Amino acid sequence: MARIAVDLLGGDQAPAVVVDGALRACRADPFLHLTLVGPAEAADAVVAALKPAERRRVTTEITPTATVPGAMRLVAEGRADAVVSAGDTRVAVVSAARELGRWPGVRRPALTAVLPTAAGRVILLDVGSAVDSDAETLAWHARLGAAYASVVHRIPAPRVGLLTIGTEPGKGDRLRRTLPALLYDLPLPGGARYAGLVEGGDVVLGRAADVVVTDGFTGNVLLKGLETAYALTGPPAPEKDLPPRAALLLGVSGTVVVCHGAAAGPDLAAGIALAADLHRRASVAVIADLLRAQRGIAND
Amino acid sequence: MARIAVDLLGGDQAPAVVVDGALRACRADPFLHLTLVGPAEAADAVVAALKPAERRRVTTEITPTATVPGAMRLVAEGRADAVVSAGDTRVAVVSAARELGRWPGVRRPALTAVLPTAAGRVILLDVGSAVDSDAETLAWHARLGAAYASVVHRIPAPRVGLLTIGTEPGKGDRLRRTLPALLYDLPLPGGARYAGLVEGGDVVLGRAADVVVTDGFTGNVLLKGLETAYALTGPPAPEKDLPPRAALLLGVSGTVVVCHGAAAGPDLAAGIALAADLHRRASVAVIADLLRAQRGIAND
Repeated sequence: MARIAVDLLGGDQAPAVVVDGALRACRADPFLHLTLVGPAEAADAVVAALKPAERRRVTTEITPTATVPGAMRLVAEGRADAVVSAGDTRVAVVSAARELGRWPGVRRPALTAVLPTAAGRVILLDVGSAVDSDAETLAWHARLGAAYASVVHRIPAPRVGLLTIGTEPGKGDRLRRTLPALLYDLPLPGGARYAGLVEGGDVVLGRAADVVVTDGFTGNVLLKGLETAYALTGPPAPEKDLPPRAALLLGVSGTVVVCHGAAAGPDLAAGIALAADLHRRASVAVIADLLRAQRGIAND
Repeated sequence: MARIAVDLLGGDQAPAVVVDGALRACRADPFLHLTLVGPAEAADAVVAALKPAERRRVTTEITPTATVPGAMRLVAEGRADAVVSAGDTRVAVVSAARELGRWPGVRRPALTAVLPTAAGRVILLDVGSAVDSDAETLAWHARLGAAYASVVHRIPAPRVGLLTIGTEPGKGDRLRRTLPALLYDLPLPGGARYAGLVEGGDVVLGRAADVVVTDGFTGNVLLKGLETAYALTGPPAPEKDLPPRAALLLGVSGTVVVCHGAAAGPDLAAGIALAADLHRRASVAVIADLLRAQRGIAND
């Protein structure tokens, strides 16, 4: 059984869209138990509307104050295995760090998304956690992204690219001009290697890098632009199962999945399924172990 | 006759792609004269390869040093009406400012692109000139974009949006959090008004704003992402004539069009056609006049 705590008030259309997503997720996965975390009034309304059979799989947890810290605490206390929220990203990041703790050395966790490309999938991070980023944060995110690509997507020797606006040396803004020197010497986990500078188009083509590292502002703008475009035009290559429009928060001691504020029921269901899958594969713990081991080697 | 100075060495595949683009542009427009600006060796090779009939329309200008400043000087000296380059954006921006002069008050010119959307076209600026931007520059770009929308695209009362990563107040990075207060009070030309915060998806949907203002780093990443996506998937709405994949440099006293480094012949031809059209309509001068008049009113 995967026990997922879901933020009942997260999302522009909450709580209706959250309940819709929860029921969709349960129908698709018989080994799922969802705890909808919210204030008494909203939680009671949900319970009243559920059919008797659904009530065994979908329960509620009353939070006296904010819903997201309440959901994180369920994981911290061992009463849930993962959190899913379509609420404010900043609140999710801050309360995850506080309630679950950050990994040693990680100042800013990374919101990590997956996009379909013309040549497989690309991992894009950060997409909204570290909006005012610095070189050290982006270097850490390169390590997080490499470990994620290796563990979750089983990419052998992932190529990690730095998103910028021209692939000749010296291009980009202040932050991007100083970073490549740092990244070339950075030990990366999972046999990953720094593959150099990539551009916005490379996140569509998918040929230059498996993991694309950027600050949370640029990453969020590009992600929302491309996701909206693909929703209208279709993805750049036909794929049976599109990656979920939900992002994993990497760098905290727990499985936290963040959906868009504008997420619809199917998006929330996909986010819940992602959280359950990551929990069952113990992905977050394996990534943390890999980083710890690789760090130990690098420090030798 | 529109006389366009074209950077012979601009573009990853130059000079071949420049000559291809030049000949395509001439075939499409009988009232075009192109001066390909480059070093003696490349220029001589071009002339030798041209057919006699083409030589009347396509001539060369030898530059002893860099090609882009040479092209700008042709406009400064009245020997050409506009410049087109697919070379390094920074070089184009710096040499345009030096050779042609910036408009009063404009510290950083804005590279201004046009994208197809699900609801008409959207004007996106800056897409690569001011990569390390500040609030004053973005406020100026809001004015430049509003004037451009009004004069060139004849949009009545253009809506100017600020690109960020969440439309609730307080979202975004440091720069974006301070800007809205400034933009609400900013007098805009062409009857334009500040339409608030927009997200990456709004540049695809096109409903929230006619003009989207952002820093040159984010704008370039988003532009290249969306252009690459649309090249693979088709644009988000069927449109007969897609906007050219070329950007106008706004804020200098001359018509300067910048194409991508990876531009193909048709892209360069579209950039040349754009430059010729803007020259014939005296667009840059009209925009400058509009801004001067609106500034005069605002200062009353």
